[in-house]
Amino acid sequence: MSSANNNGLLVVGSVAYDSVKTPEGSRQDALGGSAMYFSLSSSYFSPVSVVAVVGEDFRDRDINIFKAHNVDVSGLVKASGKTFRWSGVYSTEDVNQRETLDTQLNVFADFSPTLTEQQRKSPYVFLANIDPGLQLDVLEQMAARPKLVALDTMNFWIEGRRDALTKIVSKVDVLFMDEGEVRQFADEPNLVSAARKIIGIGPKVVVAKRGEHGVMVVQNGSLFVLPAFPLDRVVDPTGAGDTFAGGFMGYLASSGDLSPDGFRRAAMLGSVMGSFTVEAFSMERLHELKQADIESRFRNLSEICRASPLGKGESLPWRNGN
Amino acid sequence: MSSANNNGLLVVGSVAYDSVKTPEGSRQDALGGSAMYFSLSSSYFSPVSVVAVVGEDFRDRDINIFKAHNVDVSGLVKASGKTFRWSGVYSTEDVNQRETLDTQLNVFADFSPTLTEQQRKSPYVFLANIDPGLQLDVLEQMAARPKLVALDTMNFWIEGRRDALTKIVSKVDVLFMDEGEVRQFADEPNLVSAARKIIGIGPKVVVAKRGEHGVMVVQNGSLFVLPAFPLDRVVDPTGAGDTFAGGFMGYLASSGDLSPDGFRRAAMLGSVMGSFTVEAFSMERLHELKQADIESRFRNLSEICRASPLGKGESLPWRNGN
Repeated sequence: MSSANNNGLLVVGSVAYDSVKTPEGSRQDALGGSAMYFSLSSSYFSPVSVVAVVGEDFRDRDINIFKAHNVDVSGLVKASGKTFRWSGVYSTEDVNQRETLDTQLNVFADFSPTLTEQQRKSPYVFLANIDPGLQLDVLEQMAARPKLVALDTMNFWIEGRRDALTKIVSKVDVLFMDEGEVRQFADEPNLVSAARKIIGIGPKVVVAKRGEHGVMVVQNGSLFVLPAFPLDRVVDPTGAGDTFAGGFMGYLASSGDLSPDGFRRAAMLGSVMGSFTVEAFSMERLHELKQADIESRFRNLSEICRASPLGKGESLPWRNGN
Repeated sequence: MSSANNNGLLVVGSVAYDSVKTPEGSRQDALGGSAMYFSLSSSYFSPVSVVAVVGEDFRDRDINIFKAHNVDVSGLVKASGKTFRWSGVYSTEDVNQRETLDTQLNVFADFSPTLTEQQRKSPYVFLANIDPGLQLDVLEQMAARPKLVALDTMNFWIEGRRDALTKIVSKVDVLFMDEGEVRQFADEPNLVSAARKIIGIGPKVVVAKRGEHGVMVVQNGSLFVLPAFPLDRVVDPTGAGDTFAGGFMGYLASSGDLSPDGFRRAAMLGSVMGSFTVEAFSMERLHELKQADIESRFRNLSEICRASPLGKGESLPWRNGN
């Protein structure tokens, strides 16, 4: 729907209309979907191109939100039918617990992602949470092996499509999953052991998402545990994970830093971006960020998780004569 | 019961016999109690003196465990009756959930801590989780205001003795509570806001314990969120909180560093010590630590939570022309 600009990041996922109710309020048919949160989040750092499908009811003003962020929407296909709809309610006791009230796949039921020539050359690819068969299909359309492929998935596919999921997971570099799903997929109760088991089948990095408790980034020879940015108020957790992935991948695509420390910083920036998303409904906060907002919160998070390590040669203050 | 050596840390709390069952096994009448975990943990760093009561059934070999760590047990009173007993079972689904099966206060029911002349001069004091009236009584016995007084408490006292608890909390420097208790005591759902509200009534530092998710240390103008050390195997969580407090206070008493960064390092060392305790039943692991074990894990934790902050003048990698 607009001119291509994809020398950066490609995301394949959903664009949806979400109806949510949280202790802080509600929204009806608000712009949502993994590809939306991911692309807006990464757009602050990298050119990004979306592959997704919407229905005839998709509003022009919502396309303009993508365009306002210079997101390439040439791969945002309008199909006959209605846009994917999800509705859910978040618990008043614990805003991180939610119940799905309704899911209407609509045009998403027949989603069959087809990449443009330009998109096939994307060096950075994010396969958002869709059927693992479709994720594999996208990867096979790439003209050459991208520099970095990341994948997000969920328990639904672990339970129903384990073989297909294992196949695509073995081909990606970075795997995003909730911590419970990492344990479930690896069939191993210890999170670090579970992540290392998954690294054994292919990925170089496993990012275990822990909601309000942050993330754990497991690599060969490196383990990083990052707390979440503490917020005064969580309005709507919808999209936090995909916004996190957008900041994470946006950092990597922009900096090109795929070192162990690069992944640490990517996780920090992902957390920062996710923390903005949950402060408002839909993309209401994510949409309006200034560079100064992001950088200031990044520096705050750095200070909040700043440890006080021992210097080289420094010892702990042992009891005399102990 | 031994010669006094209390130019360091004083702890007032319980010494108990615990019977626990966890997914990893069980123990009957194993050495436990807040003052035991605290004093063994802090003994690696600081002289420590215990005030507690045990019964006539208290075993000599258990007194010898204190002595092996050079803990001053001159304030460990043997009263007629039986030693405090607690028994509980930890969930097989989530080892951090437990159910109390039985509590027999025994000699602890009439515990009325009396400090020796030496103990009244202790510069560092830890008031473990006992009746807030007794905690206040201990503080009033001090010859002069100690350099630092820390207090641990729990929901039982928040619910049943709020006024007495508020009075003693207003007089201490450091407050340890589970995160849910911080919210409950402050009557404020947001953890950071709740901690700041408590700082408003007296304490300089609120340490919110989050179990497997680590701790949050809130001070005026400083916020530190520290993840827990990731363990391969949790055998028995009993005593983790008091062991944490022992490492925390042991660091402060030994280093004398009460700066904001001193509290960060104290929390790290507390976490390290707590992580050892939960790797075995009772004090079985805590008892046998070498300095090299502790320092190595401290350095591991430092690396695990090492962020990748921006340098001075460095920027995030913004998208060109964004």
